[in-house]
Amino acid sequence: MKRFIAEALGTAVLVLVGCGSVVAVNLLGSGLSPAVAMGASVHTQGILAIALAFGLSVTAMAYCIGPISGCHINPAVTVALWTAGRFSGKDVPGYLIAQFVGGFVGAGVLALILQGAPGGYAISGGVFGQTTFGAWSPMSALLTEAVATFIFTAVILGVTQPNVGGGALAGLVIGLTLALLHLAFVPITGNSLNPARTLAPNLYAGGAAAAQIWVYFVGPLVGAALAGLAFKSGILSGEK
Amino acid sequence: MKRFIAEALGTAVLVLVGCGSVVAVNLLGSGLSPAVAMGASVHTQGILAIALAFGLSVTAMAYCIGPISGCHINPAVTVALWTAGRFSGKDVPGYLIAQFVGGFVGAGVLALILQGAPGGYAISGGVFGQTTFGAWSPMSALLTEAVATFIFTAVILGVTQPNVGGGALAGLVIGLTLALLHLAFVPITGNSLNPARTLAPNLYAGGAAAAQIWVYFVGPLVGAALAGLAFKSGILSGEK
Amino acid sequence: MKRFIAEALGTAVLVLVGCGSVVAVNLLGSGLSPAVAMGASVHTQGILAIALAFGLSVTAMAYCIGPISGCHINPAVTVALWTAGRFSGKDVPGYLIAQFVGGFVGAGVLALILQGAPGGYAISGGVFGQTTFGAWSPMSALLTEAVATFIFTAVILGVTQPNVGGGALAGLVIGLTLALLHLAFVPITGNSLNPARTLAPNLYAGGAAAAQIWVYFVGPLVGAALAGLAFKSGILSGEK
Amino acid sequence: MKRFIAEALGTAVLVLVGCGSVVAVNLLGSGLSPAVAMGASVHTQGILAIALAFGLSVTAMAYCIGPISGCHINPAVTVALWTAGRFSGKDVPGYLIAQFVGGFVGAGVLALILQGAPGGYAISGGVFGQTTFGAWSPMSALLTEAVATFIFTAVILGVTQPNVGGGALAGLVIGLTLALLHLAFVPITGNSLNPARTLAPNLYAGGAAAAQIWVYFVGPLVGAALAGLAFKSGILSGEK
Repeated sequence: MKRFIAEALGTAVLVLVGCGSVVAVNLLGSGLSPAVAMGASVHTQGILAIALAFGLSVTAMAYCIGPISGCHINPAVTVALWTAGRFSGKDVPGYLIAQFVGGFVGAGVLALILQGAPGGYAISGGVFGQTTFGAWSPMSALLTEAVATFIFTAVILGVTQPNVGGGALAGLVIGLTLALLHLAFVPITGNSLNPARTLAPNLYAGGAAAAQIWVYFVGPLVGAALAGLAFKSGILSGEK
Repeated sequence: MKRFIAEALGTAVLVLVGCGSVVAVNLLGSGLSPAVAMGASVHTQGILAIALAFGLSVTAMAYCIGPISGCHINPAVTVALWTAGRFSGKDVPGYLIAQFVGGFVGAGVLALILQGAPGGYAISGGVFGQTTFGAWSPMSALLTEAVATFIFTAVILGVTQPNVGGGALAGLVIGLTLALLHLAFVPITGNSLNPARTLAPNLYAGGAAAAQIWVYFVGPLVGAALAGLAFKSGILSGEK
Repeated sequence: MKRFIAEALGTAVLVLVGCGSVVAVNLLGSGLSPAVAMGASVHTQGILAIALAFGLSVTAMAYCIGPISGCHINPAVTVALWTAGRFSGKDVPGYLIAQFVGGFVGAGVLALILQGAPGGYAISGGVFGQTTFGAWSPMSALLTEAVATFIFTAVILGVTQPNVGGGALAGLVIGLTLALLHLAFVPITGNSLNPARTLAPNLYAGGAAAAQIWVYFVGPLVGAALAGLAFKSGILSGEK
Repeated sequence: MKRFIAEALGTAVLVLVGCGSVVAVNLLGSGLSPAVAMGASVHTQGILAIALAFGLSVTAMAYCIGPISGCHINPAVTVALWTAGRFSGKDVPGYLIAQFVGGFVGAGVLALILQGAPGGYAISGGVFGQTTFGAWSPMSALLTEAVATFIFTAVILGVTQPNVGGGALAGLVIGLTLALLHLAFVPITGNSLNPARTLAPNLYAGGAAAAQIWVYFVGPLVGAALAGLAFKSGILSGEK
């Protein structure tokens, strides 16, 4: 039970702080763009702040709840570890449920805070950290999410290997890798790589964001499973 | 005594360099904003610099005075460690006094330096790194400071756990976590999370900043106490 | 064979994510510049994002495939390790081939994703992460690439030394060093330091980028060989 | 002798890459400022890139030449270690000479590269990474350089302490601390903290930059000596 609470808390922090940084960039504005949504219209000035907010949220949680649950806070990570044979299948459902619940908790706290914004804050149809691919082809979006999640989970599986991995550095390396992938893929799909990070914000925002949710399930889970199998089969597993 | 000097020095550096970075962004300007105050009106370009200035000040001090006092440099951190049962209650008053004194020393040195600015520099009513929540509701501000401080102190309590924590990396992880939280919460409350970081700058700046100080005591201390209790009760404590 | 697959994968990720970040900055735009190419015309706002994208790609791969192949993902790195006497000459050809193949794979995946861009995306003659030195003198470009690669590979050779090196931190230090060098040299040559990172993107982009490829072979390989010899001769090798 | 070569090389890299980043921000421009000099007129967009360029240069060199000379690459650092009783007085002159020579080598290589700039590049009277305090009072400038160098060298002395220091992380922490201090003090003095980083660029640039060099000797050396004495006396030395 304690592990599920940890996964929910960690995912809530990721969504609250990560999506919160998108809202922050939108609130701060800069005269260059009317709205800063993940994906189609985030502008250059905000991409680094948003990338580090998502990435370092994972780093922070890795060192906070990692000792309890391993800090997956992402269904794709759970699937990658499971397909790699490093996580028990019977724990998968509980982890996934906890992660999705956590996503809604994080989005809910952010929505609650934004109720106090001067003049109000439009969440539905507005900027809430949702991920969309706008007018990009769904095939490009699927490919982007799958490839980026493959890279992300391959790094996770590599750096957490016993003996040849990164040891205590793993949480830092994993967070920086998530940040890094934002720098290339935010203008295409918003670089979700995580169904639990996308589900709640996209439902809150509604419209196209809600209609495109399926891409953020299929792409990341396929990429994660392929990374898991690459380690399971020995192709990417390290040797001392 | 040596520990109190260390806490005062560390808090002074945090306020001098952190608030100094807010002043720096204001001095550099950019043609986009007439004034860059923490909270309501910092603009996009400066948020990352300011976030890293506060965060990495904590990192720097962690490796400088950490071996002497543990580098709390924040009453909320002292309260979190105390409620978690990892810091003696009889040392709390001395630590808090040293931290608040340090905050005034840091703000004082910054004010002294700014006396030499070309054409002078307006501190009272100007930009001095004070934290304000402008026209946001006090409830949102309290919630933001409490939630963000809960996350910050939970990471501190997690990463400094013996055996399962981050070991020598703790100072780096803690600083990056403080930076990270700025990226989401600066436009709401300025992301203080630390009464000793806010008291002196807000008194120097005066006006609304002085009137809102109570929020920066109540929010962080409540969030910190809750994080301490979450570890004390075992909910968030890690296991090997 | 497994090592060659790892080198190809790592180089593909470096080109996909690094050049992807240049495309991303171009896609995000900012009203300040019509096009953001590496070298002559990248603008200020994007340099940090691009620098970190290339640098942290190396860090991510170091902890992912490092345990398999050592994560050279750069012919200059292979040459530096070989001239330093720390890598077998008989493995050099296989590593170089894998790296160049990986560069084309990474560029190919990026091109494939960009096919789905709204309204299409011009790669030939457009912005694709190619490196050029525009109207700078070839001598300055050669000197820049040689000096920067000397620094980069000297740090690699230093931090990976047994006993006196950086141990598990090596991957992080190496990636940050690559990022760092971008901050100074992007406006001159695009800071390639890596023939396998430049070959495919420059051929895709064509024009001047294709004609200038030779500089990105000669400069980095000369710099790398000099760094290797500085360690081989003992001038730069550390002592406990 | 080998140690002196290492100190000269490290200081050359610091000046080449650090001052190179100032030149880069100037070359990239952004339509916001006609010139980007350290101190008075660097604009907001460049401060983070410049801060990281100087800071991470120290980090990179720490892991490259640290095992040979300890990587002082700064007369203030040598003075701090000497006054703290952790560096032999008879080695001080050799280190200082090597550092100043290195500064001229780094500035010379940068000047050589800039000779190939399209349309030429004005170094004398232009932007070359020189540090100036413009119309700020000399007293504020001295205070800023002394306080910032005190903080910088106190972190160095703290994190490199045996047993209670940061171990292998020291090079990273020291570099991030130098970056951090830029974020607050660049608009005042350019945040030199290092006579060998300032001498050559200021002489190349000439004018006010040359006339103000004395401040960049007195301020940093006083701050460094005070930090050394604070450790020598035991006030800031850590205990296990």
